[in-house]
Amino acid sequence: MNIGACIFDVFGTTVDWRTSVSREAGLFFKEKNIAHVDPTEFAVEWRKLYQPSMEEVRSGRRPFTILDELHRESLVSLLRRYQINNLSEKDVEHLNRAWHRLDPWPDVVEGLVRLKKKLIIAPCSNGNIALMVNLAKRAGLPWDCVLGAETARAYKPMPEAYRVSCRQLGLPPARVMMVAAHNGDLKAAKAQGLATAFVPRPAEHGPGQKTDLAADPACVDLPVASFTELASRLGC
Amino acid sequence: MNIGACIFDVFGTTVDWRTSVSREAGLFFKEKNIAHVDPTEFAVEWRKLYQPSMEEVRSGRRPFTILDELHRESLVSLLRRYQINNLSEKDVEHLNRAWHRLDPWPDVVEGLVRLKKKLIIAPCSNGNIALMVNLAKRAGLPWDCVLGAETARAYKPMPEAYRVSCRQLGLPPARVMMVAAHNGDLKAAKAQGLATAFVPRPAEHGPGQKTDLAADPACVDLPVASFTELASRLGC
Repeated sequence: MNIGACIFDVFGTTVDWRTSVSREAGLFFKEKNIAHVDPTEFAVEWRKLYQPSMEEVRSGRRPFTILDELHRESLVSLLRRYQINNLSEKDVEHLNRAWHRLDPWPDVVEGLVRLKKKLIIAPCSNGNIALMVNLAKRAGLPWDCVLGAETARAYKPMPEAYRVSCRQLGLPPARVMMVAAHNGDLKAAKAQGLATAFVPRPAEHGPGQKTDLAADPACVDLPVASFTELASRLGC
Repeated sequence: MNIGACIFDVFGTTVDWRTSVSREAGLFFKEKNIAHVDPTEFAVEWRKLYQPSMEEVRSGRRPFTILDELHRESLVSLLRRYQINNLSEKDVEHLNRAWHRLDPWPDVVEGLVRLKKKLIIAPCSNGNIALMVNLAKRAGLPWDCVLGAETARAYKPMPEAYRVSCRQLGLPPARVMMVAAHNGDLKAAKAQGLATAFVPRPAEHGPGQKTDLAADPACVDLPVASFTELASRLGC
């Protein structure tokens, strides 16, 4: 393998969205004296609306729309469902930005710092540019640039999301490694000719997670335990 | 001013393209035993084809095409003009990538490192993403993300190049400061509501430069002597 760039899934693979959004929702509910909603349930229900909202774009039923907007629409419908009323626009915006305040898994920053010395590193996430930039600055993720849905104008796992990212880096797909904790993401990347690495995140969905506990050998070139092991395996 | 991000012109403002491309051309000509072409003249003539090549895109006469491709077309026509023949595809590609190997002005890295601690920093260049990423890695420019012509799909000074960059950062134009050594760039940014800073680069075009020696008060909010002074003025 002659890898020139590693591109990373973010939600779940690089950052722990479930714990972080729960924390942010909990802080918000406390401040607003909202006692009838469990923050972790709220985070999980919010995330459940993620794939359906992107599917509207993937299917062509609506034009490309950035994730901050899709998140916000999902949030508004969720607030209605939980009968949380009378929030200001500013409150809703602050809560929506919970997705800009996600914590990385413990191995991530050290792994990225090492990888960056030899390789190009970039997110290839369905999150939009502002979300990725704000998240990275807060979490200390030293990306070389931000790729993904907004620059490719296509949501993963659409082929364009991977193909356009490679083209924008000026590299053939075989020299770009997609890194994810989700076999489905890696299967789609592999179909476009990218190299693939799987990092398990068995706590992404909390206790008792049943999915993506191990790499699928059919689509994974390099199964590793962490971003730091990935760095070692790539000679960084 | 409540600035959240500084976005930077690159060729001329952040890096010294003339000296760097001359050096790269000189090295290449020496290796290929090409003695009849002056490397500095070659760099300047190459740069002269820059605006006309982008104007084809701006005018709508051709679809959006990244700068690496425009640079390469200009290079091929220049090689023909100077009767430099029998180069391999690999040689032409290597010489074209001279634009990925440009040195920053001496104040740039320190200024950007300081600015990055408080603000988002990104190039807003007509250079494409791969060019910007490769240049930044070699020169140590610590960008938070790469914006500009390829992400906006519009070449400066088209209004979209500035407007889309602000939108992608999730910031209103008044909170984004365009930094350039060229009054024309800042005039176009100001027309879209961005804040502006002028940094003089009186050696960009070599000895005897007559243009852009001073800020035009009509479009410049903040005239500074260097990226480090810019950092100080913005409290970084």
